[in-house]
Amino acid sequence: MRLQGIFPPITTPFNSDGELYKAKVQHNVEKWNRTALSGYVVCGSTGESVMLTTEEKVRMWEWVAEFASSDKLLIAGTGVESVRETVDLTNRAAAIGYKAAMVRTPHYYKNLLNRTEAQVLYFRAVADQAKIPVMIYNWPQATGLDIPAEAVIELSHHPNIVAIKESSGNLEKVMRMIREVKKGFQVLVGSAPTLWPSLTVGAAGAVLAFANAAPYATITIWEAFRTREMEAAQDWQNRIAHAAYLVTTKYGVPGLKYAMDLNGYYGGPPRLPLVPLCPEAKREIEEAFQHLKG
Amino acid sequence: MRLQGIFPPITTPFNSDGELYKAKVQHNVEKWNRTALSGYVVCGSTGESVMLTTEEKVRMWEWVAEFASSDKLLIAGTGVESVRETVDLTNRAAAIGYKAAMVRTPHYYKNLLNRTEAQVLYFRAVADQAKIPVMIYNWPQATGLDIPAEAVIELSHHPNIVAIKESSGNLEKVMRMIREVKKGFQVLVGSAPTLWPSLTVGAAGAVLAFANAAPYATITIWEAFRTREMEAAQDWQNRIAHAAYLVTTKYGVPGLKYAMDLNGYYGGPPRLPLVPLCPEAKREIEEAFQHLKG
Amino acid sequence: MRLQGIFPPITTPFNSDGELYKAKVQHNVEKWNRTALSGYVVCGSTGESVMLTTEEKVRMWEWVAEFASSDKLLIAGTGVESVRETVDLTNRAAAIGYKAAMVRTPHYYKNLLNRTEAQVLYFRAVADQAKIPVMIYNWPQATGLDIPAEAVIELSHHPNIVAIKESSGNLEKVMRMIREVKKGFQVLVGSAPTLWPSLTVGAAGAVLAFANAAPYATITIWEAFRTREMEAAQDWQNRIAHAAYLVTTKYGVPGLKYAMDLNGYYGGPPRLPLVPLCPEAKREIEEAFQHLKG
Amino acid sequence: MRLQGIFPPITTPFNSDGELYKAKVQHNVEKWNRTALSGYVVCGSTGESVMLTTEEKVRMWEWVAEFASSDKLLIAGTGVESVRETVDLTNRAAAIGYKAAMVRTPHYYKNLLNRTEAQVLYFRAVADQAKIPVMIYNWPQATGLDIPAEAVIELSHHPNIVAIKESSGNLEKVMRMIREVKKGFQVLVGSAPTLWPSLTVGAAGAVLAFANAAPYATITIWEAFRTREMEAAQDWQNRIAHAAYLVTTKYGVPGLKYAMDLNGYYGGPPRLPLVPLCPEAKREIEEAFQHLKG
Repeated sequence: MRLQGIFPPITTPFNSDGELYKAKVQHNVEKWNRTALSGYVVCGSTGESVMLTTEEKVRMWEWVAEFASSDKLLIAGTGVESVRETVDLTNRAAAIGYKAAMVRTPHYYKNLLNRTEAQVLYFRAVADQAKIPVMIYNWPQATGLDIPAEAVIELSHHPNIVAIKESSGNLEKVMRMIREVKKGFQVLVGSAPTLWPSLTVGAAGAVLAFANAAPYATITIWEAFRTREMEAAQDWQNRIAHAAYLVTTKYGVPGLKYAMDLNGYYGGPPRLPLVPLCPEAKREIEEAFQHLKG
Repeated sequence: MRLQGIFPPITTPFNSDGELYKAKVQHNVEKWNRTALSGYVVCGSTGESVMLTTEEKVRMWEWVAEFASSDKLLIAGTGVESVRETVDLTNRAAAIGYKAAMVRTPHYYKNLLNRTEAQVLYFRAVADQAKIPVMIYNWPQATGLDIPAEAVIELSHHPNIVAIKESSGNLEKVMRMIREVKKGFQVLVGSAPTLWPSLTVGAAGAVLAFANAAPYATITIWEAFRTREMEAAQDWQNRIAHAAYLVTTKYGVPGLKYAMDLNGYYGGPPRLPLVPLCPEAKREIEEAFQHLKG
Repeated sequence: MRLQGIFPPITTPFNSDGELYKAKVQHNVEKWNRTALSGYVVCGSTGESVMLTTEEKVRMWEWVAEFASSDKLLIAGTGVESVRETVDLTNRAAAIGYKAAMVRTPHYYKNLLNRTEAQVLYFRAVADQAKIPVMIYNWPQATGLDIPAEAVIELSHHPNIVAIKESSGNLEKVMRMIREVKKGFQVLVGSAPTLWPSLTVGAAGAVLAFANAAPYATITIWEAFRTREMEAAQDWQNRIAHAAYLVTTKYGVPGLKYAMDLNGYYGGPPRLPLVPLCPEAKREIEEAFQHLKG
Repeated sequence: MRLQGIFPPITTPFNSDGELYKAKVQHNVEKWNRTALSGYVVCGSTGESVMLTTEEKVRMWEWVAEFASSDKLLIAGTGVESVRETVDLTNRAAAIGYKAAMVRTPHYYKNLLNRTEAQVLYFRAVADQAKIPVMIYNWPQATGLDIPAEAVIELSHHPNIVAIKESSGNLEKVMRMIREVKKGFQVLVGSAPTLWPSLTVGAAGAVLAFANAAPYATITIWEAFRTREMEAAQDWQNRIAHAAYLVTTKYGVPGLKYAMDLNGYYGGPPRLPLVPLCPEAKREIEEAFQHLKG
């Protein structure tokens, strides 16, 4: 399975009552279908998966599968703390037609899980029982736990673990993993501000929240990298830098959803305790996205 | 509502297939019923709540309500990331007869939630809609987020927020909260190794994982404190120190479950990725619990 | 050597040119001489030791030795990163008449020093060559490194290491060290907001920046503890809490120096990059110290 | 002043008594003189500056100035906590002929210094009085404080602050600084494992501990970058990765000194509490440096 190019971890649209909003899922997916995005990650952190019930996750998977064009690779965010529930979710996604599962590192019992063996045990147990390939998902800024490179290198030898999405932004770790994982295992990154240098050192692709609102800019960097147009790549990287910072680090999902609203997608409200942006933050985002089309 | 004395956040018994084990819930609760424990917290961190489905949580609440003696106060661990699901869980527990809800600080989107206003917004929104009083639950060692004392002080004025379980072990923060919260708001602690000094500075009680396996020792400290027998309190505090360290910080839930097995309760296996103890760890716990009865 | 009671780590007075100010050293020390403080720590963190040249440290040691009354125990802050310079400084202080050396944990090369063996090696090497007893000094809030309890327990067996000043505020660690160190080794704390509970669990005394400005309040807590007047101790602990927070955590040395100015001592300006307080901070401190005499 | 290319922060040679070893300074510098290194940083973290007395630093500056060939730019590591001592050291280095001063972020009083204004105040005060240009030096892994990009951007407008050595390894921060600092201000990096991607995104050069032992490999990457030989740059980056990790992150200065001994330089012993390597670590380094010449 080749996980190349740019994947948005898609946002989950809610209506004004806070319910899932199917029409807007359709709207967004059909608009993204017309881009060169490689596929969709459904129910990741950007999809507010920690705010969704199991039934809501399943509905999102079904709807996206219904609306996605056939050339888009479908990846389901299925990781929760326990092995058994993660396996169950993964296999429900597989039954719906998803091709891979993105599984977040378990992290709640940090003092027990914050070591190579515990992470290896979890991912092996999940991958052994999963009917589709597993992509490890590491985002220490949210989980408070950074899966060691050693664990990833060891897990890369498992036949059903095919990739990692490394969102720490730590390029030294990315480089080390690229050097030392089993041939064929793919390292994707999850940080738009370092997309270009990450591709330069060998990342296979990227899962970028920012691509929800501005897919073309990220695809442009990807294409510039592939055709070795270094100046163009660097130039576009600089152009997206501030906007990407605003809708990820600074304002998170509520910021990203507002940028989507600006760019012809449906962003809408997040779920509490996340809150819609204040007017000042909106203006900041409006300015940053002025020249970035959806 | 008076939340005084010692509450175990009870463990969740699984059988060898990893399923909930009702007979053992009954066994444990009936054994604890014969102690002076003040009540039970059901589906907290020690109850592996992050490993349970919603249906499993509800079943645990029902079973414990069925077996608990009438003098035990029932508290449900209901906090998840979203306001709406936390409210829903809280009100299901209320319908079963629970008297209070212990609600963990939301923490996944750390960069957005790591501030006073975000925490205040969440707990207010939950408490406004909850049919039973709310106890804030702060355990930064797991969540990676420490609710500021300022937020707790502000929230203490909400009529439906009655207590905090502060498990950080930070006594300076405990003391500050006790000084500055609204009169009547109760500060409980969640750290057995500092139980006695916490009571000394004014903590109303404690929610202690350790009390699952060794309730009498913790009650003895509580009684010694109430009767101002300082030497006895300090002596018992020293006696439990190492054992409490082993089954919380060092070996966590798997260690605690093993200590329960030693002391006439059913501990049983944890859910993966937590794993049963190795023989060496078992011996360490056996030695530490030699003189601590269940 | 008995290190009981309250020791201020004294501030270093500078004149308006930023030079050491001998007359004010004399003024402060003679005023403290009239209190029941147990002694003085000269050139600790509160003494801005990291801002002083070696010659300035020696001058401070000499001046304080000249002005201190004979009942005050003199302790020199002598810890720097290298063993050889720490030993040299310690023995210069010994020659001036200091009775003990307070030695900060080495910490600059964190990834190498952040382990039990490295800390044990350092303190053993220093203590072997020091002509006066050594007190370990741990303040992770400044050094970014927390000496493990295991290292302290091991070092407590060295004949020339007699105490630790633990300023982390971590009462669980304090309790564990008190339980497990060699008999005779003394645990002092360095955090005024937790003074009383620390004494309650067995701390021998305290080195408190706050005592520079308000010695009587800290001595009152000490005396109340010794005579088992628990209510009085708790009452005074509450009275100093906010003031102590302001001149340590919130405003640090500049805040403490201003409180000294208010209370009849010479505080004066700190050295850059520390800066004198803004008017608003001054007002906050004035209010907090209104009923705390010098 | 152009700070381009590769600069080693040179190690400080000690003899078996732990004294400065002039003959070996001469040996090392004369050997490095024959390479294309751009200059030398004397008394940085790698030079164990925190272990040196003021007099020893001055001697090191004098000796290196005596032996360095005239085409090498001389930079003195002069940063200590106080403004006045940093200025004094900087101007002594200037008098000896140093062309720039590398000044570490002040960090001991973290809670006061951990903000943009405090860092800006310090560096402005130093730069105002310094007779040579200042390079900011940020190494949060040692100092426990990460100077904010905002502070660096603001300081880049000071006429006497010309560069930053950013050793955090955070490429996103490096990219942001390159985008937002005043034109002409130079961003150098201090992390060998990310040298190539750092150059790719616009770093002016690098100050690399690893270059003490293996200057040619780092220069090769620099030259490959300049001539746009991307494959060669990546290839060499991969070749040095493990060796660089060993002599920086894993074994630090003692590891680097051993690698220098292997490669025809004098490394020698570090100062306590740093300790020479154990045989196993030596073997690890021998293997990693097998194909990296000095």
